[in-house]
Amino acid sequence: MQPIPTTPPSGFRDFLPEACAARAEAVSTISRIYRSFGFQQIATSAVEDLAVLMGKGGGENEKLIFKIQKRGEKLEEALAKKEELADLGLRFDLTLPLARYYSKHGSQLPRPFKAFHIGPVWRAERAQKGRYREFYQCDVDIVGSEDLGAEIDVISAILAAFKAFHLDDVEVHLNDRALVYAALAAAGVPEDQRAGACVILDKLDKVERAVVASELEALVGADASRGVAASLMEPDGEAYREVDPARHARLTAICAAVGYPRMRVNPSLMRGFDYYTGPVFEFRSPKLSGSLGGGGRYDRLTEKFGGQKVPACGGSIGFERLMLLLEEAHKETPPAGPKFCVTVFSEEMRAKSLALAASLRAGGASTDVYPGTGKLGHQFKYADAKRARYALVIGPDEAASGKVKAKDLKTGEEKTVSEAELQDLP
Amino acid sequence: MQPIPTTPPSGFRDFLPEACAARAEAVSTISRIYRSFGFQQIATSAVEDLAVLMGKGGGENEKLIFKIQKRGEKLEEALAKKEELADLGLRFDLTLPLARYYSKHGSQLPRPFKAFHIGPVWRAERAQKGRYREFYQCDVDIVGSEDLGAEIDVISAILAAFKAFHLDDVEVHLNDRALVYAALAAAGVPEDQRAGACVILDKLDKVERAVVASELEALVGADASRGVAASLMEPDGEAYREVDPARHARLTAICAAVGYPRMRVNPSLMRGFDYYTGPVFEFRSPKLSGSLGGGGRYDRLTEKFGGQKVPACGGSIGFERLMLLLEEAHKETPPAGPKFCVTVFSEEMRAKSLALAASLRAGGASTDVYPGTGKLGHQFKYADAKRARYALVIGPDEAASGKVKAKDLKTGEEKTVSEAELQDLP
Repeated sequence: MQPIPTTPPSGFRDFLPEACAARAEAVSTISRIYRSFGFQQIATSAVEDLAVLMGKGGGENEKLIFKIQKRGEKLEEALAKKEELADLGLRFDLTLPLARYYSKHGSQLPRPFKAFHIGPVWRAERAQKGRYREFYQCDVDIVGSEDLGAEIDVISAILAAFKAFHLDDVEVHLNDRALVYAALAAAGVPEDQRAGACVILDKLDKVERAVVASELEALVGADASRGVAASLMEPDGEAYREVDPARHARLTAICAAVGYPRMRVNPSLMRGFDYYTGPVFEFRSPKLSGSLGGGGRYDRLTEKFGGQKVPACGGSIGFERLMLLLEEAHKETPPAGPKFCVTVFSEEMRAKSLALAASLRAGGASTDVYPGTGKLGHQFKYADAKRARYALVIGPDEAASGKVKAKDLKTGEEKTVSEAELQDLP
Repeated sequence: MQPIPTTPPSGFRDFLPEACAARAEAVSTISRIYRSFGFQQIATSAVEDLAVLMGKGGGENEKLIFKIQKRGEKLEEALAKKEELADLGLRFDLTLPLARYYSKHGSQLPRPFKAFHIGPVWRAERAQKGRYREFYQCDVDIVGSEDLGAEIDVISAILAAFKAFHLDDVEVHLNDRALVYAALAAAGVPEDQRAGACVILDKLDKVERAVVASELEALVGADASRGVAASLMEPDGEAYREVDPARHARLTAICAAVGYPRMRVNPSLMRGFDYYTGPVFEFRSPKLSGSLGGGGRYDRLTEKFGGQKVPACGGSIGFERLMLLLEEAHKETPPAGPKFCVTVFSEEMRAKSLALAASLRAGGASTDVYPGTGKLGHQFKYADAKRARYALVIGPDEAASGKVKAKDLKTGEEKTVSEAELQDLP
């Protein structure tokens, strides 16, 4: 018999207390910022019907779904009939659940609906360094507005979150999926080659320009590729603007309204998802390759659920990458432990220690109590491991004099003080 | 083709913004209280290896596991060989993952380790009113202490959480699994009937005493059942104490140290789980049948992972039942919306509205901006739906005079004020 593993499955993670505290604090900061912009939190189930996740035509995402096996008789029946063995699956993003949610509950929600949605998603990808099978997304969406106010709001809220983490050097790249298609059309790229051309152009960040140009020429021919290069492989300029001046003007209006110095129109920004229909954007950090988040307009996602077309725009913070960036900062200043750790001198003195702890907590100080009555030396080591600021001792002498011995765990200094003095300690 | 469902799968739930805000606030309160007692938050993956979840002998829980199907070649192979088709599963509680976590990471953690763990768990039970297939647990555990300080700390922390929700009438029932077994042994119940006797005694809360007594007599005979009735079917008293005075004294010591008036030893409290080895406890509300939470000592759970026996004690708040109790209170005072909702008078005035919103947020007020430029009447309705306190308008007149029109959405009153005056509004 194989031993039962103590490690989580490949691609899944446990979080030690320090990492967990940092993640919880980051989620709380992002929530606070999103809420301060008037976004309302929603929650959907981790598990969805497979029919919701699989979509009409299938596609790449299907392969990434963790499928949940049917149970009981239904499983027997499916095995016998060689039918699909799974009926449920874990969500792989928060956008599709939002579309389902809005299709179901839209009539009870404010219009437009400004939502945020934070939680884990699951993808059965090959696990590798920095890529996990369970990871958090922090989405912010506006459903029901065609106005560019939606893009402005979503981008501004995400930037405010980055600012709250003191990430002041984040860049915002903005483009428009429809404008890209119009540029490809204007350059003479036939419709059935446009998606392929986008895939090639998407490599401009990582691959040399000459390589991209030659791949493009191989796909669409020399003439078309020259046109594409002029509009889509250059920084934003006249050529790109002329493709569709009105649509391009929306992008510059979004930039102006967000008013962020590190934001610009980038004609070669593609963003991978098929469902984007208009403006797309991406957040990048000079300290990290790849993106810190992104999003865009997706006006057709609710159609899947049989409802009418609803305009929507959303963005997401790449939470795991954000935590990677914040890790260094946390190493320098690890999260604080409780202010006090009260030791328990003996069985007889336990009640005094518990009463002191309750009183300190009532005064607003987080206060640990050692869950035992062992040697004081061990209890001090415990207080150290918890990164408490002070270890407190009430022995018979202290109790008799109504005092407490406080050991400063930073300096090692000990002094005997009254409880009122404890409350005033820094 | 069947339409794609917009409802979550049976037993799963979406949360509308108000419910979601209430839940997020409750989780945040519980976390704050647990942390104030010196418990450190941990997180484990939602998905575990099936071997971890299934245990050695199998049992009831196995049937409740949502199993995740193998993928790709492994699935093909399993189908061909008629082997287990699943390799992973969703966790059904937070205790087993904690045992795995401690077995893996124990050497890096403070000893004893005071942990809290909040998150969803999944059980493939038949969904019914008030019973869900995805629900939250809020666990607090102390691993590595045999001392009754652990029980005191866990029970006190959970009571403090209930107190933070103004649930001052919660009762605590305390018992000891080993004491129950000793009482059964003393009454002459043979070892192989003791678990069955516990199942019958567990019904005392719900079923008439005479029914329980006759079921018991049918199982263990008249003589033994008289002895059981004397110690286990009465309120705590001499008969129960005499079974094992030292063990019973621990219970009364725990009660004394917690010092909570609504806490008592209840000899018929059983708590369902097999893994409890010592004291068990349960929280009940007079407003709700069934329990609001519970826990106990489980000293053998890490053995499963091949490590040495580690003493542990933990408890859990029944989060969904807590939310049920809090629902009424929330209906009376629904969570507040943003303080301000800034309307957008026109495309030309958008920049003014955005600048005002940014400035109000910088002053600490949560401030929504309408993501569009539609009719003001519609924008006011939107502000109402968001339960904003004030709707603000900057039209050309207001802009010219450096003022803002503020509509109090409670009273309907409108006044034109400066931005500084806005910051001072209640």
